Amino acid sequence: MNIVDPNLHVDRESRITLGVLRGVGLGPGDPELMTLRAARQVSEAKIVAYFSKRGKPSHARAIAARFIAKDCAELPLTYPLTTEIPFDHPDYVAALAAFYEESAERLALHLSLGRDVALLCEGDPMLYGSFMHLQTRLSSRFSVEVCAGVSGMSGCFASARQPMTWGDDVLTVIPATLPREALAMRLAATDAAVVMKLGGNLGKLRLALQDAKLTERAIYVERGTMADEKIMRLTDKRDDDAPYFALVLVPGDGRRP
Amino acid sequence: MNIVDPNLHVDRESRITLGVLRGVGLGPGDPELMTLRAARQVSEAKIVAYFSKRGKPSHARAIAARFIAKDCAELPLTYPLTTEIPFDHPDYVAALAAFYEESAERLALHLSLGRDVALLCEGDPMLYGSFMHLQTRLSSRFSVEVCAGVSGMSGCFASARQPMTWGDDVLTVIPATLPREALAMRLAATDAAVVMKLGGNLGKLRLALQDAKLTERAIYVERGTMADEKIMRLTDKRDDDAPYFALVLVPGDGRRP
Repeated sequence: MNIVDPNLHVDRESRITLGVLRGVGLGPGDPELMTLRAARQVSEAKIVAYFSKRGKPSHARAIAARFIAKDCAELPLTYPLTTEIPFDHPDYVAALAAFYEESAERLALHLSLGRDVALLCEGDPMLYGSFMHLQTRLSSRFSVEVCAGVSGMSGCFASARQPMTWGDDVLTVIPATLPREALAMRLAATDAAVVMKLGGNLGKLRLALQDAKLTERAIYVERGTMADEKIMRLTDKRDDDAPYFALVLVPGDGRRP
Repeated sequence: MNIVDPNLHVDRESRITLGVLRGVGLGPGDPELMTLRAARQVSEAKIVAYFSKRGKPSHARAIAARFIAKDCAELPLTYPLTTEIPFDHPDYVAALAAFYEESAERLALHLSLGRDVALLCEGDPMLYGSFMHLQTRLSSRFSVEVCAGVSGMSGCFASARQPMTWGDDVLTVIPATLPREALAMRLAATDAAVVMKLGGNLGKLRLALQDAKLTERAIYVERGTMADEKIMRLTDKRDDDAPYFALVLVPGDGRRP
C-alpha cells in the first residue's frame, strides 16, 4: 500500500472512467538512455504533452520523437515569455502560476473525458521538474503515475566516467542560483557536490569554489550524454558562458578499499 | 574531447586490440527501468560479470536476466564473507581490497585478450557502486565506458510519486551509517534529503530526524520499484527492521508558483 498516494481522495469508481496522467522521465538527452518503460509508454500514448519555450522546439519531444505514434495527438505547453523579468519577481511568479494553472486545465479536459495523457519530462521528473507543478494541481482529481528517468546528473557522471560517492560520502546537489556565500558554505561542508542550473551563475560559482578551496577538483559538463557534450576541468574553461542545464561536478574522495 | 578521460595514457594502438570494460547501469530493480542502451549492451555482451553475496543469487544478474544471450559467458564476482567484521575494521578493509584486486585481475585477463566485458551494476554505477572499485584499478590499462542508469533514489521518488526538489532547494544524499549527531546536523541544514544505507541504522536515524524536527516529513521506501515495494510515512512504520538498500526521503518544500 502506498500511503503517500496523492490520489487517495479520488474514489474508486471515478478512477475507472477518468484518464491517467503519466509523468514519463526521458533521461538526460541521449534517446538511448530512455528506459524500456518510457519507450513503451510513449509508443502506447494517444496524447502526449510537453513543455517548450516559445519559438524553440521542445527538447523533451526531440528525445522521445522516434517513439511517438503517427496518430498520437500532441499538446505543446509553451512557457510565457518571461526572460526580461527576474525569476524571484512577483510578476514572474504570477505569470508562471497562471501558465501552470492553464496547462493543468488543458490536461484536465482530456483526463476528465477518460483519455490518458503522457507528459514528457527531461531527466528525472521528481528533481526540479515542471511536471511536479502539474502533478500538484491534478493529483486530487486524477490518478498520477511517474516513470523514473535517468537524472541529468547521472547522465553527466557516466559521460565524465566520474565516480562520485564512495563509502560514507555525503553528496549535496546545489542550485548555482544561490548567493556566493551560501554556495561556498555548502561546497565546503560536503564530500561530493553537483552544482546545477549554471546559466549566468558560473562566474559566481568560480568564486565560491575558490572560497571552499575546491577549484582544482571541479569538472564542467555541458550537454552531457548528447552528441555535442563538453567535459573539461573547470580550470580549463576559459569563459563563463554556460547554458542553464550545464553542471559542475565535485567528485567525492571517501573510503575505498 | 573528454579531458578527465581515465584512459588518457592508453595509447591508440593498444586500444584497438584490448577489450573494453563497460559498467552497465541497470536501474533500481524493475527490469523495465533498464535503459534501451543497457538492454542492448547486455544482449550484445559475450562476457557479463556481476557482483553477488556468497550463497545468494546476484540481484544485478536477475534484473538483466532476460537480455543475457544463451552463449554469453558469465563471470560471478562473489564478495568475501565479512558480515562478522565491522565495515571500518582494518581486516574488513583488507579483505575487500584483496577481493577487488582479484576481481580486477579476473576481468583484466579477458580484456587483455581483446574481449569486452559488461559489468552489470544496480542503480547508477557512479553512486556508491562496486563498479567504481574496478574502474579505478583498470582504467589505466583498458578503455572504460559507463552506461548511466536510473539511480535507486530516482526509482524511489517515482514509486512514492514524491516531488523532491523545487526551485532553489538543496538536496543532500546522506548515508545512514553516519553518527546520530552528524545525521541530525545534515538533515537540519538541507531543504530535501535522501538517507541511504538504512540496514541496522533506522533506530539511530529516527532519533536524528527528531533532533532535526523532521520526523513528520519522512517517508520510508523499501524495495522501491519492485513488486514487493513498501512505501509509508516513517511514523507509520512500527519496527526498525530495514534492509540495507531501503531509503528515507525528506521531500523539499521550496519555491513553487
